[in-house]
Amino acid sequence: MIKASIISIGNEILSGQTVDTNASYLSTKLFLIGVPVVSSYTIGDDIDSIVRVLSLASGDADVVLTTGGLGPTDDDLTRQGLAKFLNTELRLQSELLQRIEDFFTRRNVQMPERNKVQAYIPSGAKALANKLGSAPGIWAERKGKVLVALPGVPSEMKQIFEESVLPELKRLTKASGQVGTVIRKLKCFGAGESAIAELLGSLCQRGRNPLINCTVEHGVITLHIVATAEENDSAQKMAEKDEGLLCNILGKLVYGTDEQTLAEVVGQKLAQQKKTIAVAESCTGGALAKLITDVPGSSKYFTHGWVTYSNDAKTVELGVGADLIARYGAVSGQVAEAMAQGCRNRAETDYAIGITGIAGPTGGSQQKPVGLVYISVDSDGGCETQQFIFSHGRASIRLRAAQTALNMLRLRLWID
Amino acid sequence: MIKASIISIGNEILSGQTVDTNASYLSTKLFLIGVPVVSSYTIGDDIDSIVRVLSLASGDADVVLTTGGLGPTDDDLTRQGLAKFLNTELRLQSELLQRIEDFFTRRNVQMPERNKVQAYIPSGAKALANKLGSAPGIWAERKGKVLVALPGVPSEMKQIFEESVLPELKRLTKASGQVGTVIRKLKCFGAGESAIAELLGSLCQRGRNPLINCTVEHGVITLHIVATAEENDSAQKMAEKDEGLLCNILGKLVYGTDEQTLAEVVGQKLAQQKKTIAVAESCTGGALAKLITDVPGSSKYFTHGWVTYSNDAKTVELGVGADLIARYGAVSGQVAEAMAQGCRNRAETDYAIGITGIAGPTGGSQQKPVGLVYISVDSDGGCETQQFIFSHGRASIRLRAAQTALNMLRLRLWID
Repeated sequence: MIKASIISIGNEILSGQTVDTNASYLSTKLFLIGVPVVSSYTIGDDIDSIVRVLSLASGDADVVLTTGGLGPTDDDLTRQGLAKFLNTELRLQSELLQRIEDFFTRRNVQMPERNKVQAYIPSGAKALANKLGSAPGIWAERKGKVLVALPGVPSEMKQIFEESVLPELKRLTKASGQVGTVIRKLKCFGAGESAIAELLGSLCQRGRNPLINCTVEHGVITLHIVATAEENDSAQKMAEKDEGLLCNILGKLVYGTDEQTLAEVVGQKLAQQKKTIAVAESCTGGALAKLITDVPGSSKYFTHGWVTYSNDAKTVELGVGADLIARYGAVSGQVAEAMAQGCRNRAETDYAIGITGIAGPTGGSQQKPVGLVYISVDSDGGCETQQFIFSHGRASIRLRAAQTALNMLRLRLWID
Repeated sequence: MIKASIISIGNEILSGQTVDTNASYLSTKLFLIGVPVVSSYTIGDDIDSIVRVLSLASGDADVVLTTGGLGPTDDDLTRQGLAKFLNTELRLQSELLQRIEDFFTRRNVQMPERNKVQAYIPSGAKALANKLGSAPGIWAERKGKVLVALPGVPSEMKQIFEESVLPELKRLTKASGQVGTVIRKLKCFGAGESAIAELLGSLCQRGRNPLINCTVEHGVITLHIVATAEENDSAQKMAEKDEGLLCNILGKLVYGTDEQTLAEVVGQKLAQQKKTIAVAESCTGGALAKLITDVPGSSKYFTHGWVTYSNDAKTVELGVGADLIARYGAVSGQVAEAMAQGCRNRAETDYAIGITGIAGPTGGSQQKPVGLVYISVDSDGGCETQQFIFSHGRASIRLRAAQTALNMLRLRLWID
């Protein structure tokens, strides 16, 4: 099996000034053609580090991809590092120089003298055309290993990778009889990572094929079903079979697939059923309305949102009784319910959501701690109110509350 | 000089499913206390890889930080890897188990059995309290090297790092007499990266000390002033001098420092002046209210938000004339103005903002393209309306519109 290793080169990545998205892009692309990335390194702009890590990476893998360090300035040292590792010299390729000059000419600029260094590549290596910038990529081979150097600018890196590298790698994997990795994703909401792992039991075992990986982000659990087989079709079937299995076990916890958000799934259902929704928010401060309207076309079903941050706003805009607030407090199930009902009343929609809670960091008490949130969903089917205690700070509490409201609405939509 | 190396552990990072932001966060934090990160590794959930890379990283550096692999599931193997590398056993710490059980109890949940593994840490190592989740961090030492394991969930990783790791590392660097890099950040809004670079001219040259780096995110330009000197005081003075220089050149484009957001700066000013604000949004769909209420304590000045997505909502809730909408269209300067004025009227606040526009991807026309947004700010000082054309898709258009509204309010607050 052909394996890959990725090296990100640049002081700006090492010092944290730039988040490296190139490695993740390359990993995904390689994974999809059945080439697992077995290691990934980040190093600074330094020839010795480059040589050392090229050596480590070629120990790990058959294909080594580097990004960064191909620019025209003094701190761009990937060319030199690669040549040193290959035990060869940099040579000026006049054809390549012409291409770089043309790149500047097309933009009505004379090539700065320093860009000439970009036409030097290790002797015996091949230049890969860069259609978006002046830095060509480099393809080299050594002792049966493939070494590919790509520029660090994401758009240029992607263009060269997709046009010149990917087809070659596909050819290699095909020649080695390696095919067939299929990934399917199931999106879940409403239970924690460990609870889901417990439900799935041995399905999550390491080394199983399909492999089932679990990632969490803001309460959304994504299950990645990674099936590998010699034939793409078989991998596809294995993944589909597992998807069915997981859906059966997890039931209503599964809300969608791939990159779907809760707001998209809820929005589709509302649009299908030709229903409308309005929301009344306190502690989430607009986050719920924002999630709903993140979805293109949401104006079909979303009509009104209120952010009633003050008690006065709750009373005047939504008709929440001042006596109710005085008796139970603004953060109470009673007020959440009155907000949802008042909201539906006022907006004349089929569904309405009311949220009130304490996002923190201050404002909590023994009885009502930071993170306490009440959410009500109101429809002709009745008004349902639930109490939650969220954690992880203000931003997370707000987002989790908004997501949980969407999830309550989702479950309600499947019943109503 | 104390150097650091970072190891990111997780199949989801290696396969590209998750972009690793932890490494960049840690790099920045370490850089600020004068600890350069000299290498960074990403590996999968595999004990042998963990041991191998722990060995490489401790060869590179004095402090090795790992993130990820401390969860409760079978693919969380950092504890085992660390113990193997340290040549020791995992031991149950009953005190730690109690803390993890308490974490669940506080959330009214019984601890799932599998979370018990999180109470096992290598013999001789120290647990680092996790206040936001169930995975404790681990601090171990071996042959003069420090090894720190942190969870992969960014909020938990940051909490543990800032509370338990950073102070210890500061102590170490102080003891080793290591000083001298000071970074100051200036946050700007209202001009593009190249316009700012042109204003700054030779100040942005590479190799200059202080070095001035520029990063861009959602229209916010951050200028990083990185001053290096043998004494911390001198670096501090150099950075401050440059900060003054940049502020003079950029004037009102600079809105704050460090991690300040536009919403924080505007909020501080409103709180100081004891003024209130309400907002009425159409295309931004709650994104502006959310930005304002992201700020803790925003209930002091923020009272009401309306998301009037339908025309009807604009008329009934804000009193925007149906004839006005019919004559000029819902996306017009006239309607933005009427929204702002209606909003201020209704909420009885000192300031109000109205936003209407076309976020796309559909709904645009020749006359009114996708990205067209009108923003009005209303106060006793009058009502100011501006037209913008934003780009880069729905999410970016919405966020840029909300940020631009805050910037208009900021400039107004400094005049009023």
